[in-house]
Parts: sequence; structure tokens; C-alpha cells
Amino acid sequence: MLKLFYSPGSCALASHIALEEAGAAYETVRLNFGANEQRQPEYMKINPKGRVPALATERGVLTETPAILAFVAQSFPQARLASLDDPFAFGRVQAFNSYLCATVHVAHAHRIRGYRWVDAGDEAALAAMKRKVPHSVGECFELIEREMLSGPWVMGDSYTICDPYLFTVASWLEADGVDPARFPRVRDHRQRMAERPAVKKALADERR
Amino acid sequence: MLKLFYSPGSCALASHIALEEAGAAYETVRLNFGANEQRQPEYMKINPKGRVPALATERGVLTETPAILAFVAQSFPQARLASLDDPFAFGRVQAFNSYLCATVHVAHAHRIRGYRWVDAGDEAALAAMKRKVPHSVGECFELIEREMLSGPWVMGDSYTICDPYLFTVASWLEADGVDPARFPRVRDHRQRMAERPAVKKALADERR
Repeated sequence: MLKLFYSPGSCALASHIALEEAGAAYETVRLNFGANEQRQPEYMKINPKGRVPALATERGVLTETPAILAFVAQSFPQARLASLDDPFAFGRVQAFNSYLCATVHVAHAHRIRGYRWVDAGDEAALAAMKRKVPHSVGECFELIEREMLSGPWVMGDSYTICDPYLFTVASWLEADGVDPARFPRVRDHRQRMAERPAVKKALADERR
Repeated sequence: MLKLFYSPGSCALASHIALEEAGAAYETVRLNFGANEQRQPEYMKINPKGRVPALATERGVLTETPAILAFVAQSFPQARLASLDDPFAFGRVQAFNSYLCATVHVAHAHRIRGYRWVDAGDEAALAAMKRKVPHSVGECFELIEREMLSGPWVMGDSYTICDPYLFTVASWLEADGVDPARFPRVRDHRQRMAERPAVKKALADERR
């Protein structure tokens, strides 16, 4: 059975929702980041990056949200979570998810994980990074609002693996100091997502 | 015909090599970052992110290296640049490329593009970011060397879209202050790549 390693509030929520949408048989394993469980030897054997998500399959472990999401879409084709026979349409899905992963999530991470990119003791530099987050994350969402979110779903009429990922990253807006009211399409998307049974189920599981 | 927008020395080289390996009919358009061409209205219409690579296709533009690479692999299946009928094997390819995109490239970008994450005038914070690059990029390559690069190619015996991407990112090591001699497998991979006709051709084109 598939096993998803996650921590509450992390980007692993996107994979969690996708598994639920796919009707996959899976279980979840919660890691307590407060206790640094993601850095303990037991977990480092599963994912040497010491991060979440990680998806254990019968054949080995997959990491990285865009990869796990594409794996779920391809493994459960009947759930129609991406255009699987159209390289261009699939490429657009991948491009969107790659942007969330490498640009939006990274901008967000400068708020509390700045020590990845400056020395952990450099309080001034960490504070400088933190100060920029509302601007950099805001800029990303301006682009998403204006250019990327077709509506009602990210790719238009079809719900895809882009949607749980956007929902997850957009759920960080308030904490990042960005007012969601600036982005009506993103805000509506968030609401539309929150009504889906799969989203309710994943959130309830993570909030247990 | 496919049209790849690139700038020399950028991560667009990975897509350039992949197109060449695939035997695709394509042309390239060079952007002069020194003249800020990637931010001019003409290019912003093509890629509103103002970055490279962008791949113009008959159906529209694709961005983000992992997405373009997967598109090339799927569009030219006879070139066998990824396992296309095996979601787990494809997932491993995607996970590797996603790591390069969202972690390794991002660590590297803190050397000269720190203004994305702190105010452009904050010289102390920019310098703090720059100082950390040899460490953060070095750490990424330790993981690649130890856990990810099977050899002779990234995924083992099969050459895939992971290889041109690793080659591209690894070509930045010296400038990032990281000694490639620390990573014999990565160094050998770089050499093996440099001997491929497709790599020679793409590099010659970019150095014209």
C-alpha cells in the first residue's frame, strides 16, 4: 500500500489530497517537525533529504511534490487528474506545478527557513529575507491571478493535480503577510477546493 | 517548428541539449540578459515570468525546465529520453529534475540573484547569501553524489532527461566556489556528457 510521509501544514497536503482524489489505497505517516523527526536516522533512510513529502511505493520512495503528483495522476488514470496522452497539455500541468515548487514555495520558505541560504546565526540577513516575503510571494500570486489560473480550475474546466497544489500553497498567504483579497480568482479557487470531499478528508486527517 | 528561448550559461542549456538529443526540428533565440532583453515587452508576451527557458510550440509556450524536458521526452518517444510507460520510473526522473530545479538551482541563484529574496539595496544581506552558496550548493552535490547519481547516467544504464539537466547545473560548480574534485561521480558524468555530440552541438551554438 502507498504510504505518504507528511507534516501538518506542509506542502505534503497537495499529495495527500491527490491520493484522496485518485481513490488510492494509502496510509499516512505524520512527522513531528517540532521534534525534528524528519532529521532522525529512521526517516533519513526513507528520504535522505530530510523533508516531506515522501511517498513509499512497492518499488521504492518518491519525493518532490511535482513528481509525486504526476505519479498519482499516471498511476490512477481513471481519476483523470492530468492529460496523460497529450504532451503539451501535460507540459502545461508540469510547468504550473514546477512554478509553485521552485518559485512560489521557495519565496514562501524565506520567511521561516532562511537558514538554508544564510548562516543560521545571521539575524539581520534572516530578518531581511522575512521582510521581503510579502512582496515576493505577492508578486508570484499576481502572476498566477493574471496569467495562470484559467478557472474554475487551474487548467480550465478540468480539475488536475495543479489544483491541490495551488490550494496548498495559497493556504499560506495570510501567514506570509499577503492579503488574499488582492487575488479574487485565487480566493474563489481556494473556496471551491475547500468544498471538495477529498480536501475535507485530507484536512481532517492532518488536523486529527 | 519548436523555438527555444535561451541565454548563454543559463539552465536553458538543459532543454537545448535535450532537443538536440531528441533529433527535434527546432531553432533557438538568444536573449541578451546583459541588455535585460528577458524583461522587454516583446519577450514578456512570450513568457510573462521574464525568464528562460521558454519553448514556443505550435500550441503555445511552455516554461520551466522540468516541464520542457518531460515534454521533449514525451514528444519524441523514439529518442527514449525517459521511461514513458512506467509511472514509478518516470516519477524518479521527475523527482531528480524537480530537486535540481527547486533546490540546487535555487541554492545557486543566491549568489547573483539574491535580490529576488531581499531588497536589492541590502548589501549586507546579499553578501550573506553569497557567502553561504559554496556550502548550500556543496551540500546538494554531496547528496547527488552519494544517493542520486547511479552512473554511468543519472538513472543508471539509460540516458534520460536528467542527464543534460545535471550537466548544466554541475557546470556552475566552480563559479559557485565548490571544487568538483569532491564529487568524482559528478565530475565523471560531466566528462561523459561533454563527449556527446548533442552536447557539443548545443554548446557550440550557445558560444557562437
